[in-house]
Amino acid sequence: MKKIGILTSGGDAPGMNAAIRAVARRAYAEGLEVYGINYGFAGLVAGDIFPLDEEVLNDKIARGGTFLYSARYPEFAKVEGQLKGIEQLKKFGIDALVVIGGDGSYHGALRLTEHGYNTVGLPGTIDNDIPYTDFTIGFDTALNTAVDAIDKIRDTATSHRRVFVVEVMGRNAGDLALWAGVATGAEAIIVPERDYDMDKIAKRLERFREEGHDNAIIVLAEGVATAADFKAELDKHGDFDSRANTIGHMQRGGVPTARDRVLASKMGNYAIELLLQGKGGLAIGIEDNKITHHPMEDLFDEKHHADLDLYDMNNKFNQ
Amino acid sequence: MKKIGILTSGGDAPGMNAAIRAVARRAYAEGLEVYGINYGFAGLVAGDIFPLDEEVLNDKIARGGTFLYSARYPEFAKVEGQLKGIEQLKKFGIDALVVIGGDGSYHGALRLTEHGYNTVGLPGTIDNDIPYTDFTIGFDTALNTAVDAIDKIRDTATSHRRVFVVEVMGRNAGDLALWAGVATGAEAIIVPERDYDMDKIAKRLERFREEGHDNAIIVLAEGVATAADFKAELDKHGDFDSRANTIGHMQRGGVPTARDRVLASKMGNYAIELLLQGKGGLAIGIEDNKITHHPMEDLFDEKHHADLDLYDMNNKFNQ
Amino acid sequence: MKKIGILTSGGDAPGMNAAIRAVARRAYAEGLEVYGINYGFAGLVAGDIFPLDEEVLNDKIARGGTFLYSARYPEFAKVEGQLKGIEQLKKFGIDALVVIGGDGSYHGALRLTEHGYNTVGLPGTIDNDIPYTDFTIGFDTALNTAVDAIDKIRDTATSHRRVFVVEVMGRNAGDLALWAGVATGAEAIIVPERDYDMDKIAKRLERFREEGHDNAIIVLAEGVATAADFKAELDKHGDFDSRANTIGHMQRGGVPTARDRVLASKMGNYAIELLLQGKGGLAIGIEDNKITHHPMEDLFDEKHHADLDLYDMNNKFNQ
Amino acid sequence: MKKIGILTSGGDAPGMNAAIRAVARRAYAEGLEVYGINYGFAGLVAGDIFPLDEEVLNDKIARGGTFLYSARYPEFAKVEGQLKGIEQLKKFGIDALVVIGGDGSYHGALRLTEHGYNTVGLPGTIDNDIPYTDFTIGFDTALNTAVDAIDKIRDTATSHRRVFVVEVMGRNAGDLALWAGVATGAEAIIVPERDYDMDKIAKRLERFREEGHDNAIIVLAEGVATAADFKAELDKHGDFDSRANTIGHMQRGGVPTARDRVLASKMGNYAIELLLQGKGGLAIGIEDNKITHHPMEDLFDEKHHADLDLYDMNNKFNQ
Repeated sequence: MKKIGILTSGGDAPGMNAAIRAVARRAYAEGLEVYGINYGFAGLVAGDIFPLDEEVLNDKIARGGTFLYSARYPEFAKVEGQLKGIEQLKKFGIDALVVIGGDGSYHGALRLTEHGYNTVGLPGTIDNDIPYTDFTIGFDTALNTAVDAIDKIRDTATSHRRVFVVEVMGRNAGDLALWAGVATGAEAIIVPERDYDMDKIAKRLERFREEGHDNAIIVLAEGVATAADFKAELDKHGDFDSRANTIGHMQRGGVPTARDRVLASKMGNYAIELLLQGKGGLAIGIEDNKITHHPMEDLFDEKHHADLDLYDMNNKFNQ
Repeated sequence: MKKIGILTSGGDAPGMNAAIRAVARRAYAEGLEVYGINYGFAGLVAGDIFPLDEEVLNDKIARGGTFLYSARYPEFAKVEGQLKGIEQLKKFGIDALVVIGGDGSYHGALRLTEHGYNTVGLPGTIDNDIPYTDFTIGFDTALNTAVDAIDKIRDTATSHRRVFVVEVMGRNAGDLALWAGVATGAEAIIVPERDYDMDKIAKRLERFREEGHDNAIIVLAEGVATAADFKAELDKHGDFDSRANTIGHMQRGGVPTARDRVLASKMGNYAIELLLQGKGGLAIGIEDNKITHHPMEDLFDEKHHADLDLYDMNNKFNQ
Repeated sequence: MKKIGILTSGGDAPGMNAAIRAVARRAYAEGLEVYGINYGFAGLVAGDIFPLDEEVLNDKIARGGTFLYSARYPEFAKVEGQLKGIEQLKKFGIDALVVIGGDGSYHGALRLTEHGYNTVGLPGTIDNDIPYTDFTIGFDTALNTAVDAIDKIRDTATSHRRVFVVEVMGRNAGDLALWAGVATGAEAIIVPERDYDMDKIAKRLERFREEGHDNAIIVLAEGVATAADFKAELDKHGDFDSRANTIGHMQRGGVPTARDRVLASKMGNYAIELLLQGKGGLAIGIEDNKITHHPMEDLFDEKHHADLDLYDMNNKFNQ
Repeated sequence: MKKIGILTSGGDAPGMNAAIRAVARRAYAEGLEVYGINYGFAGLVAGDIFPLDEEVLNDKIARGGTFLYSARYPEFAKVEGQLKGIEQLKKFGIDALVVIGGDGSYHGALRLTEHGYNTVGLPGTIDNDIPYTDFTIGFDTALNTAVDAIDKIRDTATSHRRVFVVEVMGRNAGDLALWAGVATGAEAIIVPERDYDMDKIAKRLERFREEGHDNAIIVLAEGVATAADFKAELDKHGDFDSRANTIGHMQRGGVPTARDRVLASKMGNYAIELLLQGKGGLAIGIEDNKITHHPMEDLFDEKHHADLDLYDMNNKFNQ
C-alpha cells in the first residue's frame, strides 16, 4: 500500500475534518501518499481527486463541515458506478480508501473492498444511528448545539411561564433527544423507541404548574413528529401557552467539540492501522470506551440501540 | 422619592436582568428602597411585589431572560386596571417606577406618570424596533445568536453546495436580518423595509454558481415571509437544492453579550438619575453612542428606522 | 432511610449542580426528604443545613460552580470533627449522605459510613485524577474551555507565526493536556506521566518551520512546569518567537457541557439507588461507558491512569 | 485607480478578515483588481503579494486572526524601506492601498500616500486605543472573550467565596477593563486613566463580606500592573483568599462577534469609497455611531480617550 484516498459521504457532521486530518497525518507518518476525493462517491466516479498536502490540513481540526464536501450518490449502488470509481483509483494509483459517513456509505465501501481496494469506514453523522458504535463523529457537537439552544429557550420559557416543544434531529434514532433532554432537565422526552401518552404528559405538566413549576421543555425527536404537529396535539389536552420550535440545520454544523475531535482523531488513526494490516471492509466504532472494528456486513443486519436508561431516568426525575 | 419599583413587560430580552440590577444598584447608592414587581403590569395590578434584596442581584447580570418574569397585559390600557395598579403602589409606598420592555409597555408607563407616579422606560426587546434609540437591550445578543446559528448552517451549506433560506426574528423591523446578513456574508438579505425581486435573486445565485461560489445563505426577516414560503417561491425560479430554516425562539434567550450588559447598565443607571430629578414619562435610548431620553408620547408618533445602508452595502458586496 | 443530605467538597467543577439536582430529583421520586449542606464538611460541622426545595433546583442543571458552595476542610480528618458532623446529622434526622468532590473528600465520607451513616461519593473535579473512573464530572467542560481558548490562541499564533506554550490545569494528571492537545492539533504535548526531551521538541519545531508550518502550540500540563519556565527553557534551544500563556481558573467554571450534565445526572441517580439498597462507603465511577461503583478504600490504594495512547498518537501525527 | 492592495499590520485582531473581505468585495463591485500582501509592510517590501481571488474570501468573514498574516516591521519607518515597498507596488501595478492595523501602522501608510500611493487606514486592534474612533475592529470580540472568561471565574469565586484579580489586555488603555468590568459586575475596576487607593478597595471588599456578599472580581488593566503584583499588594491589606488570573493571548483571537464583523465591513466598504474619490492619508473611524475619517497626521497629535463614565458608574454600583 502506497497511496490512500479519503472521502466523506452522506450528511456532513462536525469532526469529519478532524477525521480526515487524522487519517492523513497518520498516513504521512507511515510514508503513505494521501489523496482527497471531493463530493464522496460522486467525486470518486468523476475523478475529482487531488493530493492532500500537509499545509491544507493545518487549521482543519477545528472546522465544522467537511472540506472534502459531501454528497449523496445512490448511483454507486450499481456495479456500473463502482467500476467507474475503480477506474479512477487505478488512474491515481490509489490502493486503499477511508470513507467517513453514515452506514449507508458502507455499502459502497464494501463493494470497493470486494473489488480488491481495502476500504475502512468511519461513522460520521450527528444522528448517532449506526450499529456497533456507542458514539458517532458529530454527535457530541450536535448534542451541545441542541443543549445550548434549549438553554436559551428555557430562559424565555421561564420568563413567560410557557411550555416549549423543541424538535431535535436524529432521524429515526432518539439519541439526540434523549441526551439533550436529560442535559437540559426536560420535563418530557419523546423518542421513536418509546410510545408516548399525551394524556399523561398533559397531566404531568398540569401537576407541575400546580406545584409552582410553571414552565416546561418537551424535547421531541424528529423521528416521532414535527414540533408543530406535536404542539397541536398537546393543545388539545390543555391550555399550556405552548410554543413549537425546531432547532434545525444548525445542528449539522459548527466547531466540533473536544470530544468529537478526539474521537475522530482516534478513529482516523486506527483506520490507517487496519489498512496497514491489509484489512478492509471494516467499520470502526467506539464501544465501552474502546476503539473497535466490525465487518461492514455485520452492520447491515444490526440495528443501533439508543440508551433508553436515559429515558427511564428522566421519567423518574419528573415523577 | 424613597421607594421605587421595577418591572419587565412584553417579550423578554437578554440584558433585562442587567438593567434591573443597574437600576437597583444605583438606587441603593442613592439611599432608595427597591421593589421588584413580577409579571409586568399584571403583577403590579395583582400586587405581586417584593423588596429587592442586594443578594438576589448578585449573579443576575450574566443571566438571560428576566428574573422578574414578564407578561403581556392589555387590560392595563383601561383606567380600571391602572387604578388597581396605583392602589398597589400606594399600599407598598412606591413613589416611582422603571419599566423595561417594548414601546407597547410605554403606554401604561405614561398613564402612571400622569397619575403622579413618575415612570421611566427602558427599551428592552431583541427586535430593535423602538424609535429614538439606535439599539435596544437584547438586540446585540439576539444578533450574535443568529450569527452563530447561521455560521453553523454555512458549514453544512458549503459541504453540500446548498442554498439556505434562514428566517430570523425582528417582527416588522429588518434590523436583525440586516445585521446578521452583513455579519455572515449573506448572499441576499430580505427585509420588510425593501421590496425584493425573486427573479433577480435567482439570477444572482445562478451567476455565483457559475463562478464556483456554489452555496448561499439568504437571511430573511420574519416580517416578510416564513422561510418555508420564501423557499417555495425561490424554488419556482430555479433548482438550488434549497433548504428552509427558522432560527426560532432561541434568539430571545441566552447569556447577554458584553454590549447588551453595558448598554443595560448605562440605561438603568440613567433611569435613576432622571427619577432623582423628579422626571417621569420619559423613554431612554442610545443615539449616536450617547444615552438620551425623549417624552414617551413622542415615540408613539415616530417610527423606528432600520439602517438601510447595510442593505445597499450588502448588495454591492454581492454585485 | 427517610432523609438524605448532599454536599460538595474540594475544588468546584462544572456539573456539580447537575449532580446535586439528579440526586435530589431521584430522591424525591423515592419519597425521600432532601437536605442541602453548604460549604462541604465545614458546613456539615457548622450545621449550615437546609431543606432542598424542588423549586431551588429548577434552573441549576445549566449552571457552573456549586450552589451548595465548596470548601476544603482538613479538620474533618480528625474524629472530633466527624463527631460534630454526626451530631448535626442527628439533629436534622439525616440518615445518609451524598458527597460530590475529589477523592480527598472520600476519606471523610468513609468515616461517616463507618459511623453508620451510609455515604456515597461522586467524582467531581476538572482534573480527571480519580481512580476507577474514566471520566470525572467537570472534565469535559474544562476540556472544552481549554480547547476553545487554544483555538483562539492558534489564530494569533498563525497570524504571527509564533510558538505558544499553553499551560492547562490537571494537577498531577496529564488528562486535560492530553485531550486538549489532541483536540487542538498540538505540535507537542507535555505531561507528568512522560519525560520530555526539549532538544527533540526544538528540532521538531525547526523541521516544521522549514516545511512551511511556521506556528505551533505546545500544550503543557501544570503538573510539569509553569508556562513561563517551560518557555524560558525552550528559548535556550532556538529562536521561536515564543510566548507563554496560562489558561487559568476559567477552566474551573462555566456552563457544563451536555456530556458533563448527563454524566452527573446518571451518577446522581445511581447514588440514590445504592443508598436505597442500604449501601455506603462506595465511590461511583464511569468505566467502559457504564456507571460502576467501588469501595472507597480501594481508591486510596489505586492511582488514576491517563490515556497515554493519546500521547503516542499525537507524536505519530507530528512525526 | 485599477489595482489596490490590502495588508494587515501590528497585532492581529478578530474582524481583520472581515475587513479584508469587505475591501475586496466592494473593490470587485467597482471593477478593481485586488492584491493581498502577506505579513504587513515586511511582505510589501519583500514582494509577498498575490491576486486576491473571490473564492479565497468565501469563508473568511467568520474567521479570527488575519489570513494575510501580520508582522511588526519598524524598518518601514526609514525611507529606504518605503522605497523598496514602492518598487513592489510599481512591479504589481498597484495604485492604492488599504492598511488595517494599529495607529503605529499609519505612519507607514502616510509615507506611501506622500509618495503618491493613496493609502487608507482601518483601526484594527483589540486594545481600542486609537484616537478619532469610538471602537476599533477587534475590541468587541476581545471584550466578549474577556467577559466570558470572567463569568467562568465568577462561578468558582462564588463557590469558594474568593476574590479574583483578573488581568485583561488593553496596553495603555483602560477600555477593555472598563467594559469588561461593568459587564461582569466587577466589584472594582483598575485602569491606567485613574489612580487607585488599595486601602479603599480592601475596605470595600471587607464591607461586602460583612454584608454576605463574599466573593469579588477585580478587573485589572494590564497597563496598570500584572495580576500577580496587584494581588500581592492587595494581600497586604487584608486576608481575602485572593487569586491572580491573567486571561492572556486568547483575547487576541477567536471568531469575531457580529458587531466586529459589521464594523469591519462598513469600514472596509468606506475605504474603497474614499480611494475612489482619489483620497489618501486618511484614517477611518466610527464616531457617534457614524463612519468617519480624519487625516492620519491628526491622529499622531491626539490621544484616545476611554469612556470614564463607566468607571464612575461602576463605583456608584459598588458604593
